[in-house]
Amino acid sequence: MSKKRIYLNAFDMNCAGHQSPGLWSHPEDQSHRYKDSEYWIELAKILERGRFDAIFLADVLGIYDVYEDSRDAAVKQGAQVPVNDPMLVVPLMAQVTKHLGFGVTVSTSYDQPYAFARSMSTLDHLTKGRVGWNIVTSYLNSAAINLGLDKQISHDTRYEIAEEFLDVCYKLWEGSWEDDAVTLDKKNRLYTDPTKVHNIDHKGEYFNVIGPHLTEPSPQRTPVIYQAGASKRGRNFAAKHAECVFISSPTKRIAEKYVKQLREETKKVGRDENEIKVFSLFTPIVATTQEEAEAKYEEYKSYSSYEGGLALLGGWTGIDLSSYEPDEELRYIKNEAIHSAVEIFTKIDPDKKWTVKEVAEFVGVGGIGPVAVGSPERVADIMEEWIEDTGVDGFNIAYAITPGTFEDFVDLVIPVLQERGLVQKEYQEETLRGNLTGSSQLPLSHPGKQYHRSLQKSL
Amino acid sequence: MSKKRIYLNAFDMNCAGHQSPGLWSHPEDQSHRYKDSEYWIELAKILERGRFDAIFLADVLGIYDVYEDSRDAAVKQGAQVPVNDPMLVVPLMAQVTKHLGFGVTVSTSYDQPYAFARSMSTLDHLTKGRVGWNIVTSYLNSAAINLGLDKQISHDTRYEIAEEFLDVCYKLWEGSWEDDAVTLDKKNRLYTDPTKVHNIDHKGEYFNVIGPHLTEPSPQRTPVIYQAGASKRGRNFAAKHAECVFISSPTKRIAEKYVKQLREETKKVGRDENEIKVFSLFTPIVATTQEEAEAKYEEYKSYSSYEGGLALLGGWTGIDLSSYEPDEELRYIKNEAIHSAVEIFTKIDPDKKWTVKEVAEFVGVGGIGPVAVGSPERVADIMEEWIEDTGVDGFNIAYAITPGTFEDFVDLVIPVLQERGLVQKEYQEETLRGNLTGSSQLPLSHPGKQYHRSLQKSL
Repeated sequence: MSKKRIYLNAFDMNCAGHQSPGLWSHPEDQSHRYKDSEYWIELAKILERGRFDAIFLADVLGIYDVYEDSRDAAVKQGAQVPVNDPMLVVPLMAQVTKHLGFGVTVSTSYDQPYAFARSMSTLDHLTKGRVGWNIVTSYLNSAAINLGLDKQISHDTRYEIAEEFLDVCYKLWEGSWEDDAVTLDKKNRLYTDPTKVHNIDHKGEYFNVIGPHLTEPSPQRTPVIYQAGASKRGRNFAAKHAECVFISSPTKRIAEKYVKQLREETKKVGRDENEIKVFSLFTPIVATTQEEAEAKYEEYKSYSSYEGGLALLGGWTGIDLSSYEPDEELRYIKNEAIHSAVEIFTKIDPDKKWTVKEVAEFVGVGGIGPVAVGSPERVADIMEEWIEDTGVDGFNIAYAITPGTFEDFVDLVIPVLQERGLVQKEYQEETLRGNLTGSSQLPLSHPGKQYHRSLQKSL
Repeated sequence: MSKKRIYLNAFDMNCAGHQSPGLWSHPEDQSHRYKDSEYWIELAKILERGRFDAIFLADVLGIYDVYEDSRDAAVKQGAQVPVNDPMLVVPLMAQVTKHLGFGVTVSTSYDQPYAFARSMSTLDHLTKGRVGWNIVTSYLNSAAINLGLDKQISHDTRYEIAEEFLDVCYKLWEGSWEDDAVTLDKKNRLYTDPTKVHNIDHKGEYFNVIGPHLTEPSPQRTPVIYQAGASKRGRNFAAKHAECVFISSPTKRIAEKYVKQLREETKKVGRDENEIKVFSLFTPIVATTQEEAEAKYEEYKSYSSYEGGLALLGGWTGIDLSSYEPDEELRYIKNEAIHSAVEIFTKIDPDKKWTVKEVAEFVGVGGIGPVAVGSPERVADIMEEWIEDTGVDGFNIAYAITPGTFEDFVDLVIPVLQERGLVQKEYQEETLRGNLTGSSQLPLSHPGKQYHRSLQKSL
C-alpha cells in the first residue's frame, strides 16, 4: 500500500452494551449472548474477514455506582454489569482465526505478577503469538474494596506499582528462559537445558520475585503492550511502555493535541515517535445510503438509555449528574469534578450549551467517542480525515449494536477502505506484533527488551 | 445400570510428563504439545468418546527443587516444568464436547476470591455448567516466595484461609444474584432487577468482600468442588466441602482405610456418607493380550527417568533421596521426612525392601498410584476389584504416554466396562454436577447451599 494503512481494533467487553447503554434492548442486538462461546466465535470470524488487527477487550472489576450514589442504574440497564472475565474467551476466538490479535485488559493493582505472567504466556502459546495486554491501574473504588484494599490506592501510587509490576513481567518474559532452553532432545533425554533457565531475582518496593518464569518462551515473549492512560502520569507511562495507545476523544482537536504530546514524550524517552500506534475510539453507523444511515442512527438513539448513559459517565468521571433535570444545562459550578465534565463537552463544540439529556444521548451511542453516520464512502472519508488531521494510526471501533455494527462496517466500509489502499487486503505476518510492526519480538528501543538475555552484559 | 457405575476422570496437567517423568522421550508421547490448542481438543474428543465424566487438571505454581536441593533434575526431565495455566485450555475443550466436565486446580493461598469467583463463573457459563474446582492450598515453598509471601504459610493456616476463601466464594456464587435477577425485559428496558442483586457483606479474618458478585448465575452456580487433601486437616476439609475427592494410593489397603475415615467424617458433619465421590489414581497399561501389555509396560519403563522420578517424589514428600546410591535400600533413619517416605513404600508391600532405583521406577510410570498392566478384561477386573474392596467410586486415570494411554483405555477397556454395566453408555445430564449427582445445583446438605437466597431466612 502506498499510503500509511489504517490500523483497526474492535472494541468490546465480556458484558452487554459496552459503549451503548440501553441498546441491548434493540431487537437485533446480541450483546446479551456475551456469556456464550458462540457469540465470541461468530464475532472473531467477522473481524478476521474484515482484516481487523485485533479485538480489544475492556474490563472492570467493579460496578458503576456514582450516579445517584447507587449501582441501580447500571444494573437496570446492564451497563457493563454483569461482566465476565475477558481472558477466557480469547482461546475460543483464536481457535477459529489465524491472524486476528487479542488485546486483554488486566489491572496491575490487584494481581501477583508471577501468576499473571504465566497466564499471559499461556495465552500467547495458545494463540500462537497473537496476544496483547491492555494495562490498567483500575479506577473503581468498588473494585479496590472487594479485592482486599481498604480503599482505592492513590493514582500516582497505582502507576508506581504498575511500573514495578511491568518490570517483573518483562524480566520473566524476556530474561528468564533463553530462546533455545527447551531442547526436546529425546536421544539425550534432555527436555530443557537447566543452564539456560534463569532466576530473575527481583527485589523491589512492592514485589519480590525470584523466578524463574514457569513457562517456556512463547512466540512473542512479551505480549503487545496496550495502554489507555489519559492523565499526565498515564501518558508518561504510555510513552515509556506502550506499543498501542487507545484514546477516547470526541473531537479531532482533542485527539490531535494528545497525539502530539504523546509523540513528544515518546521521543524524550528515547523511542521512535512513531513506535506507538494510537487508536481512537470511533463508532460507525453505516448503511448503503446516507439517508438510511441517518435513519438507523435515529433508531439506535431511541433505544439508548438516559440513566445508563449517566451511570457510565459517572463511573468514568466520578461525576454524579443525578441532581440535574434532564433539560438543565451543564454548567460550571464550584466543584472540580463537574468542571471536568463540562470541559469534555465544551471541547466538543465551544459554542454549544449541553443539556444533561443531550449529554446522556451523546454517551448513549459510542460512549464519549465520535459517531460517524453515513454511506460507506462518507464514513471512509471521515476516517481518512481523522487520520490526516490528528496523526492517529487507527481506530478502536465500538459498536452501537453487536455484531450488527461490526457486520455493517466489515461488509460496507472495509471494501471502500481497501479500494483506497487504506486497509490491508491480507495479513502480513503470523503474530500480532508481527502484523503491527513487522517483527514478533519487542524492538530494541523498548524498555522490556533490555531484559532479554542476549542483551544482558553480565551473562 | 444395575451395578453402581464407575466414575472416571482423566488426570492431566498443562505441562509435559505429568505422572510419568521421562516418558516425554517415548517416540509416541505427545505431551510436549501441551502448549498447543490442538492437543487439548484431540484429548477432549477421545475422553468424551470414552464417556469420561471429566478431565481433571492438576497445577503447581512452582518448580520441584528438593532433589539435590536444586530444580535442575525437574527442568532437565521436563517434570511438571514448564507448566502453563490450566484454566485457559478449558474453553477449547468445552467447545468440542457436550458433556465432558473440567476439574481445574486453583490454589486459595495466593488469589483474591472476588476476582477468582468471577473467573470460575465465566468458565461455568462458557462450558454451560461443566466446571469443577480442585481446591488446593499449595505446598511448594518456591511458589509462596514468588507470589509475595516471605515463606510458605503454615499448613493449618493455609486451611483456615481456604475455609474463608470458600465462604466468600459460596456467598458470591449462591447468595448474591437471585435466580430470576436477569430479566432481559426489552419492553420495560430492564436488563436486571436491582432488588434481586445483593451484597454479600463478608467481613472476615483474611478477606473483606462487600460484593455483589459481578457475574449473573451460571448453570451450576458453585462449580463442582474437588479436593485432594490427604492430611487429617485436609480430610476434615474434604468431608465438609468436597463433592469429589482424589486420592493417590498405591494399594487397596491404604485406599480402603482412607475411604472409611472420609465417609465417617462426612457423616459427622451432617452429610450423607456417599455424597462424596472418591477417585483413586490409576494408570492402565493395556493391550489386546496380556503379553503385549506387559511388553508395553517394560518398554515404557525403559523411558522413565530416575532423576525425574526422584525430583517429583522430592516435591511431593519434601524428601531428598540424592544422598542414596541407586541400589541402596530405603531405610528408616532418624529423620521424620525419610520416615514418611519409607512408610509409603513399606505399605505397598510390607515384606519388600525397596532400593532407591525401584522407588524411582515405581514413581516413573503413574506417580505413586497403582499401575494395572494387562488385557482389557484383566484391567477391567482389577478396576472392579478396587471398587469392591476399597469403596472408592471411580478412578483418576493417569497416562504413561499421552494420548496413547487414554486411547488404549477408551478403545479397549471402556467397551468391556460398558458391557459389564459399569461405565455409562450415554451421559445422563447436561452439566457436570448433573452427571455426577442428578442435579446441577448443590445439594441441601452442602455447606455452600446455605447461602442460596431461597434458603436464607432474613431476606
